[in-house]
Amino acid sequence: MDREQYERIERYMRKQMRMCDGAHDAEHVLRVLGVGLDIAAHEPDADVDVVIAACLLHDVGRREQMERGKGCHARIGAKKAEKFLKKSGFGGDFARHVADCVRTHRFRSGDAPETIEAKILYDADKVDVCGATGVARTLFYQGRLGGALYSLTADGAIADRDDAGGETFFGEYRYKLERIGERLLTPRGREIALERRTAAQAFYESMLAEVRASREEAAALLERALEGAP
Amino acid sequence: MDREQYERIERYMRKQMRMCDGAHDAEHVLRVLGVGLDIAAHEPDADVDVVIAACLLHDVGRREQMERGKGCHARIGAKKAEKFLKKSGFGGDFARHVADCVRTHRFRSGDAPETIEAKILYDADKVDVCGATGVARTLFYQGRLGGALYSLTADGAIADRDDAGGETFFGEYRYKLERIGERLLTPRGREIALERRTAAQAFYESMLAEVRASREEAAALLERALEGAP
Repeated sequence: MDREQYERIERYMRKQMRMCDGAHDAEHVLRVLGVGLDIAAHEPDADVDVVIAACLLHDVGRREQMERGKGCHARIGAKKAEKFLKKSGFGGDFARHVADCVRTHRFRSGDAPETIEAKILYDADKVDVCGATGVARTLFYQGRLGGALYSLTADGAIADRDDAGGETFFGEYRYKLERIGERLLTPRGREIALERRTAAQAFYESMLAEVRASREEAAALLERALEGAP
Repeated sequence: MDREQYERIERYMRKQMRMCDGAHDAEHVLRVLGVGLDIAAHEPDADVDVVIAACLLHDVGRREQMERGKGCHARIGAKKAEKFLKKSGFGGDFARHVADCVRTHRFRSGDAPETIEAKILYDADKVDVCGATGVARTLFYQGRLGGALYSLTADGAIADRDDAGGETFFGEYRYKLERIGERLLTPRGREIALERRTAAQAFYESMLAEVRASREEAAALLERALEGAP
């Protein structure tokens, strides 16, 4: 890929990402590209041009998913990416390969990443849910959906969900963020995820300690204040 | 205050906070109560009953502020708190003192906290913007408003605002969260804020390092990939 081709794809990506949320914006895409290129540098068989195009285009279907309130951004994005690349003069095989990576980057609906380039995109996207960045994106996204930070049972243990059965940040951390590194598909991807895990864990534990401290403080001091009452 | 009176105020608080956002919910109020009681234990002249009622009732005006899209929740809350306390059998002096604390807990509009109880509420509320909890609440709140996590200039420095002039999490951290401890009014409040600062700082620095790493990675590896192009 030459510089002009790269810039053309980046411009298109920026235009598509403009209406998305703060957890899925052009900066997210550029972070995924950075990590994707890092993983690709450890995979001698990877086609770097495919990795670059797939990382840049992986979320171009998000706007449609948001606007329609349904559909899968990975499938929508794959179609948009293939069409855009062909129109921009890339070959059909290249466009289809990139589209395959985009289609399987979500890996929920049964479409597993098969090629090394698809696995690299999958891992690079998941790395952005790890570490401090992953915590920040999760909180941003959940704040937008309007949930609770956490929910505690009467004895101070963490409840899985809030009183209304909704997701909480603590729940998301424990059931998703904490273990995401184990699901990655490349050795370098797992390595980066592991490096970043410490920051996320430290944050979660600090917050839990703060919550517990003020809760225990409240219980003990309140008890004393109310006992002193006539 | 006896247990029955306490429970009556807590029940009223829970009812008022039900429609608020995840950064300002009953859990926020209970954390503020915990820290408020901690600070009060270091202030021999503080009236603990006033502190308890003021902490529990400090945000009862939030729902109205949200619904109307204007007005100051501290002023609205002060009126609601005074009315509720009088109706619940508390004396007029007590109700007015609590209302004064609620009215000045925001301290933006010129109403400075004057009594020790008002200063304790002010500090306890600000402590909840410190530490990991403060980071989580800020991210939750900003996600709801729909901003960007950060914005970087072309050379990788942190921009004060995003391209559209909007607030970002990095901006909020650097201009508000990082220095909030300095503005507190009691020695114990400042002490707790200082203890919690480490966790917030560690999170910010981890996220900044992750962002910079993937950006520098992208720049260097991309340069190499594009240079290799024919």
